[in-house]
Amino acid sequence: MTQQPNRPTLAVIAAAAGVSLPTVSKVLNGKQDVAAATRAHVQHVLQQYDYVPLTPRPPARPLVDVVFTALDSPWAMEILRGVTEADLEVVVTSRSSAGDWVQELITGGRQGAIVVTSRLTTADQRRLGGCKLPVVVIDPIDMPGQEVPSVGATNWSGGLAATEHLIELGHRRIAVIGGQQDHLCSRARIDGYRAALDRAGIPFDPALVRHGNFHHAGGYEQARAVLELADRPTAVFAGSDEQAFGVLEAARKAGLSVPGDVSVVGFDDLPMARWSSPPLTTVRQPLADMGRMAGRMLHDLITGARLETQRVELATHLVVRASTARPS
Amino acid sequence: MTQQPNRPTLAVIAAAAGVSLPTVSKVLNGKQDVAAATRAHVQHVLQQYDYVPLTPRPPARPLVDVVFTALDSPWAMEILRGVTEADLEVVVTSRSSAGDWVQELITGGRQGAIVVTSRLTTADQRRLGGCKLPVVVIDPIDMPGQEVPSVGATNWSGGLAATEHLIELGHRRIAVIGGQQDHLCSRARIDGYRAALDRAGIPFDPALVRHGNFHHAGGYEQARAVLELADRPTAVFAGSDEQAFGVLEAARKAGLSVPGDVSVVGFDDLPMARWSSPPLTTVRQPLADMGRMAGRMLHDLITGARLETQRVELATHLVVRASTARPS
Repeated sequence: MTQQPNRPTLAVIAAAAGVSLPTVSKVLNGKQDVAAATRAHVQHVLQQYDYVPLTPRPPARPLVDVVFTALDSPWAMEILRGVTEADLEVVVTSRSSAGDWVQELITGGRQGAIVVTSRLTTADQRRLGGCKLPVVVIDPIDMPGQEVPSVGATNWSGGLAATEHLIELGHRRIAVIGGQQDHLCSRARIDGYRAALDRAGIPFDPALVRHGNFHHAGGYEQARAVLELADRPTAVFAGSDEQAFGVLEAARKAGLSVPGDVSVVGFDDLPMARWSSPPLTTVRQPLADMGRMAGRMLHDLITGARLETQRVELATHLVVRASTARPS
Repeated sequence: MTQQPNRPTLAVIAAAAGVSLPTVSKVLNGKQDVAAATRAHVQHVLQQYDYVPLTPRPPARPLVDVVFTALDSPWAMEILRGVTEADLEVVVTSRSSAGDWVQELITGGRQGAIVVTSRLTTADQRRLGGCKLPVVVIDPIDMPGQEVPSVGATNWSGGLAATEHLIELGHRRIAVIGGQQDHLCSRARIDGYRAALDRAGIPFDPALVRHGNFHHAGGYEQARAVLELADRPTAVFAGSDEQAFGVLEAARKAGLSVPGDVSVVGFDDLPMARWSSPPLTTVRQPLADMGRMAGRMLHDLITGARLETQRVELATHLVVRASTARPS
């Protein structure tokens, strides 16, 4: 590699900044033992001289992967925002098939990974558990007996809170729409719903429990079905915000007003829950906090600190907006 | 660094895989001159032995930053998805103040960067232009005379198409809500709107042109104002989908139905444009394609290939859904 003709040497930078050569070097290498003011000053001088290191340097913070099954959801964005606030360099990847990424992580020069997925196969769990690389899983799933540290949200409590809110408003015929039946997060939310009915002495009606998927079409199709029932529910608790938007559209197409004819509660509190019309009452999952927590746990694992616990569940809470009201 | 007790050596791996030691090493280092089948076989054996490299390895592909001003928008997610499909290792960062990241990029060990922002100051532009690191900007902005390669979308054509769609439906009183007045992308969209009116011989009414910001509150407030006019518009063209959702809410609160009383067109075609109720007619910006294009341009810059052009604008196109209809 040849020296560029006008390239300033580190000695020139050091002289211009009035600091020692090792200090310039420390700033360039992202070492921490330089006073903040000195660092800022040296960076300013480096910039004035358009200093560019001749060889790429290793990142100053641990380089980790955040692995999504797909980058197609605002849900992923919220989590990512939290992870990037941790003391890590975050490489984003999406893997539609879960099979190969464990080995790829290991050979890819990463120091750890955060895996975000709404489901892991038993084989995936075994591979992650056996992986020597620090890994943290973010998920609404629950992996009993698993060795992989994970961060989730209190899905059961969220289902309870959503349903109790509707009961307090006076609703008795409350439908629930879940995700795929074998997703534990969905099951936990529906169990919370059943617990709320039970506490209020409202009989459980299996006809009001529907399973779809967490997407818009799932909410739309299932809501269409329950809103056509002879004894139609006055409220619907949807398993995700995206599903709840599908419920709003099904109501609109059926000529029902929300919340006049039917109340709707979502789950997630994505940014666009505030943007729906009417704004959506929903159960907030602290997705960015979950990302930040996973980042902190991964940082601890990489630096050899002990984790306080293998499984953290952050609290959900109900956010009441304009899609719920007393039954008419 | 001490050898772990049961750690397999590369020689053990090579013997088990029936390949040479250099072949194992090439696979581990992500070199390309190994047949795909051999690579897969070696990776499989590495995995069976739970092989973990003793030292982090440099990423096989160029390590670059994608710099967002904030990770708070589904707009950002769409772009990111495209960038991750390029042949790059993508580190995601957000910088609320634009000032320092140019120097940080240089000292941070990156080989290049993609900067996503809805605005750059003149100082930022100068610093990016003078930056020795390959940089590509993704943006609806236009930087005349700039040296920084950039990717954008055809904002003017999008504004024209949205407005012509409304005119074809029979609308004559059409309001437009833009972003901040000095954003060139917003100005281009409004100029497209004016061109459409002009072609149709519809007089331009300054009272129907509003400036806010691209967010929900901006759309809501400006729509409230125009929907209260004595001679109220029968259609609103909003500068972003988020703004359009604000228009829908303003209409709902005013007791106006969409599209019965007022038609609404957005701009972006975010995933949730399909989820609004009614589903939103909007101008699609190919955000993921823009991300992918920027990734490819950056890869070319890093590997020394010549860019065909410094500025690429990808086509927008109108997506007609259910928020627009003939005026009643």
